[in-house]
Amino acid sequence: MEQLTISHVSKKYGRQVILEDLNCQLAPGKIYGLLGRNGAGKSTLLNIITGRIFPTNGTVALDKLGTNDQDRVLGQFYLMSESNLYPKRTTIQRMFDLADGSYGHFDYQNANRLLKAFGIDAKIQLSKLSTGLQTAAKLVVALNVNANYVFLDEPTLGLDANHRELFYKELVKSYQEKPRTFVLSTHLIDEIQQLVEHVLILADHHLIEDADVETLLDRAYTVTGPANLVDQYVAGLRVLSADQLGTVKTAYVFDQLDDQRVIPDQVKVGHYDLQKLFIGLTNGGSENE
Amino acid sequence: MEQLTISHVSKKYGRQVILEDLNCQLAPGKIYGLLGRNGAGKSTLLNIITGRIFPTNGTVALDKLGTNDQDRVLGQFYLMSESNLYPKRTTIQRMFDLADGSYGHFDYQNANRLLKAFGIDAKIQLSKLSTGLQTAAKLVVALNVNANYVFLDEPTLGLDANHRELFYKELVKSYQEKPRTFVLSTHLIDEIQQLVEHVLILADHHLIEDADVETLLDRAYTVTGPANLVDQYVAGLRVLSADQLGTVKTAYVFDQLDDQRVIPDQVKVGHYDLQKLFIGLTNGGSENE
Repeated sequence: MEQLTISHVSKKYGRQVILEDLNCQLAPGKIYGLLGRNGAGKSTLLNIITGRIFPTNGTVALDKLGTNDQDRVLGQFYLMSESNLYPKRTTIQRMFDLADGSYGHFDYQNANRLLKAFGIDAKIQLSKLSTGLQTAAKLVVALNVNANYVFLDEPTLGLDANHRELFYKELVKSYQEKPRTFVLSTHLIDEIQQLVEHVLILADHHLIEDADVETLLDRAYTVTGPANLVDQYVAGLRVLSADQLGTVKTAYVFDQLDDQRVIPDQVKVGHYDLQKLFIGLTNGGSENE
Repeated sequence: MEQLTISHVSKKYGRQVILEDLNCQLAPGKIYGLLGRNGAGKSTLLNIITGRIFPTNGTVALDKLGTNDQDRVLGQFYLMSESNLYPKRTTIQRMFDLADGSYGHFDYQNANRLLKAFGIDAKIQLSKLSTGLQTAAKLVVALNVNANYVFLDEPTLGLDANHRELFYKELVKSYQEKPRTFVLSTHLIDEIQQLVEHVLILADHHLIEDADVETLLDRAYTVTGPANLVDQYVAGLRVLSADQLGTVKTAYVFDQLDDQRVIPDQVKVGHYDLQKLFIGLTNGGSENE
């Protein structure tokens, strides 16, 4: 399988900059999280990668093939998105047939099993379903389409906790049976932390992080104790945020801890999770601009 | 402050039963979680309590006053919901004024501070905002309206992780400064577990649980180990679900553990969280019907 390379991608609408000089690579057979605040440009990026919209500048390529004019290349990408591109009365069965027609070898058997698990009738029209079940039906297509790169934009929109759990389990199962690349763009970061291997974080029109989850979390430390000792200990380190309750302070550090620093007895060092890290890295970002 | 009592409330649309003979009480000054699958009737219940729709049977009362005909009573209830009841061009400032007009003593100062934290201009029209910011604007009203019972239906719809964290913090702050009752109806159960004191779980048209979070979680145990030993240990206990990986099994028990049972060395007993418990209790419920 080929590697996907995004080079110098920018997108502007008039004077409004959405993405600026974006560079990254997506490897085959890996699960990615694409994170960003509302309005950070996640959907725009996914639409550019899958050829639904053109970038103002830059290229998206599989190895050395440009995607913009290569049907063979676009046929390896599938985008499941919030916006509904199907004609009004399209049934779920018809969605399966369309995916089979465009990509070939659609896995009807598994799709029908999964449809049943979500409690959806294949003969129903997509637009007649609730928001949550529309998402579920689109996920069934996305998990069974024959594409090497599957992009999921807000895959849990409107799903209740039971259906979210079902989706996460089925994604892992599908990935294990046939490893391919999935890119999940979601606001429910806590829930995908265990699922994704690598994250891309969009903020201020750029990728501010492009790293394995493990590597990122290795630098995410809480330092808790008497405020003066905590301040002393974290001096010179990158502190994303801090809470204080009375005289006890917790600093959220995102930095390599210095082995040479002696940790005072009253100070405790712990870890925090990906969602908290994301919030710390992006506060003041998009939705507040 | 007065206690809210829901007695024998049913709601039917023709032959379709939404709620059947519901009974519960909401105490003043407490934060509740109202949980249920998509389609379980959570929004219907909130609409009945706040007088937006009538129940087919039953009553909602504050102490001994029936709500259906008492303006004084309804004036103690505020419902923030997904559906938008404001005229099309309503600005955020106007929403504040309407809340002040209906309930009196709207906290303009805190509302304006919070609006700024969400990055919203008071002069903008609600309908011009993104889904996430519409939710944020409605939350600002809900957290500053002068009502003793505040019902929040899907309070995190479309919010990114940063704005969800901001909302949770502000809810706690507002509650501490002026204790009143909040009822949160949400699918993000993990995120509200620390926030709510008591949960109501709707399934199959009934309340299947009405208990303090602590009490519920005291009965939520994982039992992990060799499958045969786990099966032996949990025999006779209520097991909600089980996972097996090779010969290692994890059973999710929801029951009082028997002190008399000897735990074999190879078996480990742990805890699981409210979201997992909810899924176990409601799988096979509403959205699959």
